[in-house]
Amino acid sequence: MIPNADSAITRNEKALILAYDHGLEHGPVDFEPNPATADPDRIFDLGSHDAVTAVAVQKGIAEGYYPSYEDDVTLLAKLNGTSNLWMGEPNSSVNWTVENAVEVGADAIGFTVYGGSNHEIEMVEEFRDAQEAARQHGLGVVMWSYPRGQGLKNATTPETIAYSTRLGLELGADITKVKYPGSPDAMTHAVEMAAGSKVVMSGGSKTNDQEFLTTVHEAMKAGANGLAVGRNVFQRDNPEQILDGLEAVIFEEASVTEALDVMGAEPTDPEALD
Amino acid sequence: MIPNADSAITRNEKALILAYDHGLEHGPVDFEPNPATADPDRIFDLGSHDAVTAVAVQKGIAEGYYPSYEDDVTLLAKLNGTSNLWMGEPNSSVNWTVENAVEVGADAIGFTVYGGSNHEIEMVEEFRDAQEAARQHGLGVVMWSYPRGQGLKNATTPETIAYSTRLGLELGADITKVKYPGSPDAMTHAVEMAAGSKVVMSGGSKTNDQEFLTTVHEAMKAGANGLAVGRNVFQRDNPEQILDGLEAVIFEEASVTEALDVMGAEPTDPEALD
Amino acid sequence: MIPNADSAITRNEKALILAYDHGLEHGPVDFEPNPATADPDRIFDLGSHDAVTAVAVQKGIAEGYYPSYEDDVTLLAKLNGTSNLWMGEPNSSVNWTVENAVEVGADAIGFTVYGGSNHEIEMVEEFRDAQEAARQHGLGVVMWSYPRGQGLKNATTPETIAYSTRLGLELGADITKVKYPGSPDAMTHAVEMAAGSKVVMSGGSKTNDQEFLTTVHEAMKAGANGLAVGRNVFQRDNPEQILDGLEAVIFEEASVTEALDVMGAEPTDPEALD
Amino acid sequence: MIPNADSAITRNEKALILAYDHGLEHGPVDFEPNPATADPDRIFDLGSHDAVTAVAVQKGIAEGYYPSYEDDVTLLAKLNGTSNLWMGEPNSSVNWTVENAVEVGADAIGFTVYGGSNHEIEMVEEFRDAQEAARQHGLGVVMWSYPRGQGLKNATTPETIAYSTRLGLELGADITKVKYPGSPDAMTHAVEMAAGSKVVMSGGSKTNDQEFLTTVHEAMKAGANGLAVGRNVFQRDNPEQILDGLEAVIFEEASVTEALDVMGAEPTDPEALD
Amino acid sequence: MIPNADSAITRNEKALILAYDHGLEHGPVDFEPNPATADPDRIFDLGSHDAVTAVAVQKGIAEGYYPSYEDDVTLLAKLNGTSNLWMGEPNSSVNWTVENAVEVGADAIGFTVYGGSNHEIEMVEEFRDAQEAARQHGLGVVMWSYPRGQGLKNATTPETIAYSTRLGLELGADITKVKYPGSPDAMTHAVEMAAGSKVVMSGGSKTNDQEFLTTVHEAMKAGANGLAVGRNVFQRDNPEQILDGLEAVIFEEASVTEALDVMGAEPTDPEALD
Repeated sequence: MIPNADSAITRNEKALILAYDHGLEHGPVDFEPNPATADPDRIFDLGSHDAVTAVAVQKGIAEGYYPSYEDDVTLLAKLNGTSNLWMGEPNSSVNWTVENAVEVGADAIGFTVYGGSNHEIEMVEEFRDAQEAARQHGLGVVMWSYPRGQGLKNATTPETIAYSTRLGLELGADITKVKYPGSPDAMTHAVEMAAGSKVVMSGGSKTNDQEFLTTVHEAMKAGANGLAVGRNVFQRDNPEQILDGLEAVIFEEASVTEALDVMGAEPTDPEALD
Repeated sequence: MIPNADSAITRNEKALILAYDHGLEHGPVDFEPNPATADPDRIFDLGSHDAVTAVAVQKGIAEGYYPSYEDDVTLLAKLNGTSNLWMGEPNSSVNWTVENAVEVGADAIGFTVYGGSNHEIEMVEEFRDAQEAARQHGLGVVMWSYPRGQGLKNATTPETIAYSTRLGLELGADITKVKYPGSPDAMTHAVEMAAGSKVVMSGGSKTNDQEFLTTVHEAMKAGANGLAVGRNVFQRDNPEQILDGLEAVIFEEASVTEALDVMGAEPTDPEALD
Repeated sequence: MIPNADSAITRNEKALILAYDHGLEHGPVDFEPNPATADPDRIFDLGSHDAVTAVAVQKGIAEGYYPSYEDDVTLLAKLNGTSNLWMGEPNSSVNWTVENAVEVGADAIGFTVYGGSNHEIEMVEEFRDAQEAARQHGLGVVMWSYPRGQGLKNATTPETIAYSTRLGLELGADITKVKYPGSPDAMTHAVEMAAGSKVVMSGGSKTNDQEFLTTVHEAMKAGANGLAVGRNVFQRDNPEQILDGLEAVIFEEASVTEALDVMGAEPTDPEALD
Repeated sequence: MIPNADSAITRNEKALILAYDHGLEHGPVDFEPNPATADPDRIFDLGSHDAVTAVAVQKGIAEGYYPSYEDDVTLLAKLNGTSNLWMGEPNSSVNWTVENAVEVGADAIGFTVYGGSNHEIEMVEEFRDAQEAARQHGLGVVMWSYPRGQGLKNATTPETIAYSTRLGLELGADITKVKYPGSPDAMTHAVEMAAGSKVVMSGGSKTNDQEFLTTVHEAMKAGANGLAVGRNVFQRDNPEQILDGLEAVIFEEASVTEALDVMGAEPTDPEALD
Repeated sequence: MIPNADSAITRNEKALILAYDHGLEHGPVDFEPNPATADPDRIFDLGSHDAVTAVAVQKGIAEGYYPSYEDDVTLLAKLNGTSNLWMGEPNSSVNWTVENAVEVGADAIGFTVYGGSNHEIEMVEEFRDAQEAARQHGLGVVMWSYPRGQGLKNATTPETIAYSTRLGLELGADITKVKYPGSPDAMTHAVEMAAGSKVVMSGGSKTNDQEFLTTVHEAMKAGANGLAVGRNVFQRDNPEQILDGLEAVIFEEASVTEALDVMGAEPTDPEALD
């Protein structure tokens, strides 16, 4: 919430973050719909698209690939994350220090907090250390605020999502990434609870163009500051095409109809168009 | 208890702390009675009221909003706190370091200790670190001393509240915040156990004007040094009005009748007035 | 055991430590027999008595009160301690660092170790840090060596008390405080196991003058170096009186009869007098 | 993945790492087939063979023996590892700091991560510290990426091995050591998931010459960068002989037939030869 | 294994370490056979015997007594150890830092590792810190390598003892102290597994002169570098006498007959003599 702390990863207060930590979080299975995307070069190429304000990756990928893209891509260092090989109460290892991220060229950090998990306290304290180190180095701070765990009945209700954005605000995130809470009203409420800190919705699993753009469009109208998306971009056959559409919706206030038009794409359900 | 360590957040040895960490501790539900109060600007405006000696918030809200209010509001940095999304033995994450709080402009720190919790030892050791860092930086120290947890049968008996204030004294708090123990005698006993360190009662959940002022008045007569209040102020339709009344009771030794008069408010139960 | 490391808190190799951490360990209930003693001023006044070689308190009380008594009282900083609000395997939080204790004016540190507890290893490692920091700063080291916990059948047998003093010796205490093991022979054995490091008996709960002095007298004859006492002094109506008697027994080799005489007190059981 | 970070332990992008931490991991039983190999001198002699690009040992062996071989052998410091005397969820102690390894003369570090273990988070965070320290000192980083533990049904499926190499990539390894996934196609997939970071197969338990060379040959053709091998070399009667064969297959693109010829060895199953 | 790192505590590559941490590990009961040995002066006097290359004690005893003996005795600082008052999976607290041991005058450190314990990982990591600090200060490193714990069926089999010495080697001990594995062949095997690092057998509980010397003699012929002994020396009526015998066996290659002769002692079982 420090004024402009997130300026490197936003444009006109809006953000489209291309998230690419699926190889760690889910494993190679997420690259199957579009095998070329197992190659980080493909993603950093997408990250050079005008629509994208930052690419979020883990340390190893940044170390190996970011040097070739530092003029064209803004780096969001995703500091924690874990494999899905183990089972248990949600938690995430801290894989990257802020100091190292700065050396690699990061402009902002990303950090997952599983509110409601038995590990919430541990994760929030790790977030504290990262957030304060980010402040020292002038990096923006993005919280992946994803309530889940044994103590949590309903992780995606409007109430829980509004609590999620508030956690981002109270704990010191500049931008909080949350699931879409299901309706524009719920999104507006979640944005209000962020009280001036920014909110981006997460892209989630792959849906068709119209459906996806419609949700993003609703979120933007409801006050969201943008999108952090992975699979809904890179699992498509033509990721650049959807980025064109997202750019229209997020940065140019286009309708879904206009965005599909920009993409040269057909609506799936013309009746439902705005 | 260091002489004058808490001078920045007291006036004539008395304090009215406006607490506003409910977005973290309880979530957005606490703002429903007065939705405007989800906005920290509304709270910092209230914090500019003459009655208020300090506003207590978490790091994110201080970072984002305190720069606009630093001339008019005294900042009490609430260093720990946790969501109610998880369940388990009471505990609280440390979300903010003293060093960072100093940079943001804090004049004092606030720290919750759940005596009687299975996490008491861990919390007290975290308090130790915060308290000693506060001493290094000349900040006052306020302990939220709230016994609770598996080992505790009666958290609000006079005996437990007296023990609570003693914990504040022994562990090095300048001011200890406790629940009202139910009677003026019990409050007097609790104040005596603090042995010269200050005691403020917590405001608790919202009650009517007369009832609330009566309790505060009793506590002050019993020797308390003031109040730390959130919901009983910001959940009202007219928070400034109750601050006027509290100012009279806390700083001007007014009776409840006089305080209601200052507020221009009607007594709910005229028979019960002093 | 470093020669003279404990010289600030002993006189002619003997010690009478006035312990006053009951507000933390037991709560206000311990002040009920003599309510004036809830006030630390009363205790520091007692600490000015010639008999007393040091007063042992927690950080908060030292911070608030010791500045007024530093010319007349020697400060033993009790670094750990915990409330009895929680239940579980014996443990103690470290509430005070040696560095801070030095700033407050401490001449020695006190530290509880519950040998036999499931937390013994953790406590002994915390003791190590405190002991080595004390050595750096030239402070004496007193161990409250109190075996207790799940693994321990008999906490006050002669064997256990002798083991207790040996733990103090082996781990680096200058003075080890133990319960009286029940007989002069057992005390002598415990003192021998301390092998030149000092041993003081703890005062325990309040008993009558003759009984208490008799036990102290026995302990001294058996080779103990003195007493660390709280309730058996401050819960009496006239604490100065018993200090007079203890001074005679501990420092002047008086008999119990002579000590009672110094106090102007009557024996309870004249037949049992020495 | 930092370009050339692993250059000290590779030759033309290929590696043959002689691993020798079996005395810690399995105990003396692994030396029984060839008792002379209990002596580290025997291994460092083998490490001087042209085929070997690095020898991986624990701290104690490096301290004692590497000074005599530092001109002829490249040292890969295996930082963690544990005995098999205990039972429980897979984990590994960190026995060696990077700073000390640098003093001993290490050119790279090796670190085991048991993905899927309940200790995965702890191990990955320990890996983070080692990896970042290695970067500071310019050492290459090799991850032993071995999924195992309670949460893991199938540790050696192609999917798990592909996930293993991806973990190495994402977390910042230059080279990831994995089990052979059973087929060239699976190996190719695992190599693709490493996305430019290197992959070496582990040698596993001892097999006959033809079988072993065939697997290594398949792995190399499938894109692997080499081999990390212990028992399949040092448990043979003539370890130099198999190193000759491995050198041919790994660095000279020899067929298995050619490699056996270089070794002067007979095929076990001539029909199966390439 | 660093050449000569243990030179201060060996003579001609051999060691006789007088261990005296029984007051901590077992309590005063171990001094009952020879009560004078509760006094550390008695032990340091024994430590001045020509046979003894080092005396191993805990911090408190070193602080208090070593200053009087530093010209005549070599100090082995036993850094960890714990009481037997508690029960549970084998573990040991770290009671002494290397830095402090250096100030007290230590020439080497001793450290217990319970391989096979559920706490093995924790203990080995504590050993790592101590070992590396010892290297910084040029101190020798002795590991008490004692497999025990829930996961361990047979703690004293030849296989386990051989694994014990290998652990010492791999983890960086200069000297590893193990139980006698029952036969000269097993001892030879254990020594071979130490691969040039030194092995000393532990003295164990008290046996008669001939029996004890016979075991030591066997161990020496089998390649051991000496003995670390406590009770089998200090629980005797005439500890100097057995030290004379041990000196003959360990440093002068005497037979048991010759050693008994040096001691002026009668064989218990003349038929069994060498």
